Amino acid sequence: MSDFESVVERVRERVDPTPEERRALTEATARLADRARDAIADLPVEADVLQVGSTARGTWVAGDRDIDLFVRFPAALPREQLEEYGLTVGNDVLPEGREEYAEHPYVKGEFEGYDVDLVPCYRLDDATEIQSAVDRTPFHNAYLEARLDDDLAADVRLFKQFLKGVGAYGSDLRTQGFAGYLAELLVVEYGGFRETLEAIRDWQPPVVLDPEDHAEASFDDPLVVVDPTDPERNVAAVVSETNVARAIHHARAFLDNPDESVFDPRAPDPLDAAGVRDHLDRRATTPLAVVFDAPDLVEDQLYPQLYRSRDGLARGLDEYGFDVLRAATWADDRAVLFAELEVAERPAVERHSGPPVHVSGHAEGFYEKYDGDDSVYGPFVEDGRYVVERERDVQTAREFAENRLLEVALGAHVESRIEAGNYEVLVGAEVSALADEFGEELARYFDPTP
Amino acid sequence: MSDFESVVERVRERVDPTPEERRALTEATARLADRARDAIADLPVEADVLQVGSTARGTWVAGDRDIDLFVRFPAALPREQLEEYGLTVGNDVLPEGREEYAEHPYVKGEFEGYDVDLVPCYRLDDATEIQSAVDRTPFHNAYLEARLDDDLAADVRLFKQFLKGVGAYGSDLRTQGFAGYLAELLVVEYGGFRETLEAIRDWQPPVVLDPEDHAEASFDDPLVVVDPTDPERNVAAVVSETNVARAIHHARAFLDNPDESVFDPRAPDPLDAAGVRDHLDRRATTPLAVVFDAPDLVEDQLYPQLYRSRDGLARGLDEYGFDVLRAATWADDRAVLFAELEVAERPAVERHSGPPVHVSGHAEGFYEKYDGDDSVYGPFVEDGRYVVERERDVQTAREFAENRLLEVALGAHVESRIEAGNYEVLVGAEVSALADEFGEELARYFDPTP
Repeated sequence: MSDFESVVERVRERVDPTPEERRALTEATARLADRARDAIADLPVEADVLQVGSTARGTWVAGDRDIDLFVRFPAALPREQLEEYGLTVGNDVLPEGREEYAEHPYVKGEFEGYDVDLVPCYRLDDATEIQSAVDRTPFHNAYLEARLDDDLAADVRLFKQFLKGVGAYGSDLRTQGFAGYLAELLVVEYGGFRETLEAIRDWQPPVVLDPEDHAEASFDDPLVVVDPTDPERNVAAVVSETNVARAIHHARAFLDNPDESVFDPRAPDPLDAAGVRDHLDRRATTPLAVVFDAPDLVEDQLYPQLYRSRDGLARGLDEYGFDVLRAATWADDRAVLFAELEVAERPAVERHSGPPVHVSGHAEGFYEKYDGDDSVYGPFVEDGRYVVERERDVQTAREFAENRLLEVALGAHVESRIEAGNYEVLVGAEVSALADEFGEELARYFDPTP
Repeated sequence: MSDFESVVERVRERVDPTPEERRALTEATARLADRARDAIADLPVEADVLQVGSTARGTWVAGDRDIDLFVRFPAALPREQLEEYGLTVGNDVLPEGREEYAEHPYVKGEFEGYDVDLVPCYRLDDATEIQSAVDRTPFHNAYLEARLDDDLAADVRLFKQFLKGVGAYGSDLRTQGFAGYLAELLVVEYGGFRETLEAIRDWQPPVVLDPEDHAEASFDDPLVVVDPTDPERNVAAVVSETNVARAIHHARAFLDNPDESVFDPRAPDPLDAAGVRDHLDRRATTPLAVVFDAPDLVEDQLYPQLYRSRDGLARGLDEYGFDVLRAATWADDRAVLFAELEVAERPAVERHSGPPVHVSGHAEGFYEKYDGDDSVYGPFVEDGRYVVERERDVQTAREFAENRLLEVALGAHVESRIEAGNYEVLVGAEVSALADEFGEELARYFDPTP
């Protein structure tokens, strides 16, 4: 048996659910479905119950405990009624559950130790008629169920665990990785786990896959997988360039040298304050952190705002001459925008080039503005242009973070925090205080891997 | 009388030679020419004597004491003979003089308080037949003499003094300014001093003048004045972009607001060491100076080497991340390459971006080179590429100047000094020690004007 096969065999033992796990899940699902049908019987409308998701298709990784049940109502039912009836069924089935809102309301709750989503949707003949994203799910389910046999389902489990291990699993906006549905489509399309890794190894982004050969749009994404149930949708739209590259890297590395550890998500020991200071001493950089109470938002709203804010901070620092080596953002109770600087201080003067001397109106205006101004050096002439050396607005990165942060694009809720002055700026060794709350994030930051 | 006219009147009184000065010069020139003709009589070849230059044409500025006499030999005389006979005549006329070498040898000496150049050349029918640059001079002389009347000659004197005042007079390679011949051509072409300033005010570089409308080449210079005696030569080739801009600036400023002081070359009080430190404190920059014994070269060889070296130093510092605000070079007994830095220190690490992860051969090579290397952070993946943070070669500007200066293009004699280690690097307040030798240069540097 090759290295590849023996590693994969060992991983299969971890990711394949045992017969007991399967049976328990099947039984719990049946009980839930019965309850749902009982609740539907009390409604003045027909509806059926459909199990979807990885547990419906046998593609869940051992230990995952998610059950997704969809309640399908007639397409003619007004949306308001659908929402009302959907919540009624949900609350009947999961009396301890809570209502959640994606595109429309559903109920989430626990049942016999499983995390259950009970979601109302429309029963449609064709995916092109969908009214909201959840209406698409039954079509996805049907498409995959028709194509997944037991072997492919097992390979889906391997591939999902592989993506989890490398940190690229999940279409949430924090991870920007591969959705479960996308992982399944790829394994179906390429024909197995190994085949999927071999194909990914050879990806040359932008990569375009169109299983049904029916694309009706063009996409500007590094990875495009046209939804077999919707010719206008890229299933991989959320996957970042970095995660595409990460998948290529790990596919290549694993095929070259199969190593079981790639299936284990990294969990580095947290750095303590002294550990952070050691890295800073070795690197001789100046870190800067903007710290504030994390806005009370779901992750899919929070992280895009943090990413936008991190990029804004880094761009602003760069523009003022505080060269950024690397930037990051983390959130827990507090949120941090972090930028590690090569240059944290600039002189009191900056060069300001004016127009070419021969551009008469503009050039005279520039010269007259500064001539006789004791606060500047010059104007003088260099390479055909007027030049002055004038006082620099912002001499330190700390000043920028304390006084100019609103000049850059920030996430809306982050901007409110900054506007209100509800934030703290840490510079240099001060950032080591973050280790208490962000020790693991700092450990990852100072030991970056693909 | 307008402001312009009254200022010009006062300047005329300073720059117009008195009748006594004219007469004395005429008489001295006649005596020199007689001596030269006597010396020629002893030679086995015919030759005549021609006075050229500003004193021949009445365009010299009062107090200038240069007499240029050319001895013209038949075109058929072999070059070696011309050089030998030329030196013979020169040494006869100026027994205390010394031999100098431009394109060919001539004799330079003092006579009755005048600085005399006695230069052998060929007598030619046409300027296109010239064998060396000096053969062109008699043609220049004839061209201007035919066009200069007393009024224009007086306006040439004004314009020359104007150029001297703004620091743009002289075609030497230190100044890279306007030659006397060029100044005269411009005044002839535009028709007077005021007309010349008005024309220059409106210059839009590149400016092309072709008085004889006979150009046979195209020139890539900010100012092109096609030599009336040579269709392939730009008389203004040496004029720097900065000096063109400087002329435009001062023409505009003087026409707007005639101020006699523009005719006076600046002579700022030298800065002392404390004065240098005051500027550095105010500017909060880090100056760096490379100091060595000035190579023993004529200025036309020395300054191009110094300029090239200054530019090389500045480019090298910039490339290593030590951002240069302004650079300069000065020479006296010692020579200085000076760069004022915004950033004099960088971290111990630098970002090193590798290839996109999907470029298989190249990317694997990069990854394998750094994977497991404890001296780097990473490799990790960012925006689709491998990245490492590796040790930076050069962390301080001083290190660059002390160890890496030979990586950049330097003038040949400067390079020898650096190769031999015969130089000193001053950083920060240390440069204030330069004030003893370069106080005036430092005063100009810290009070730059157009």
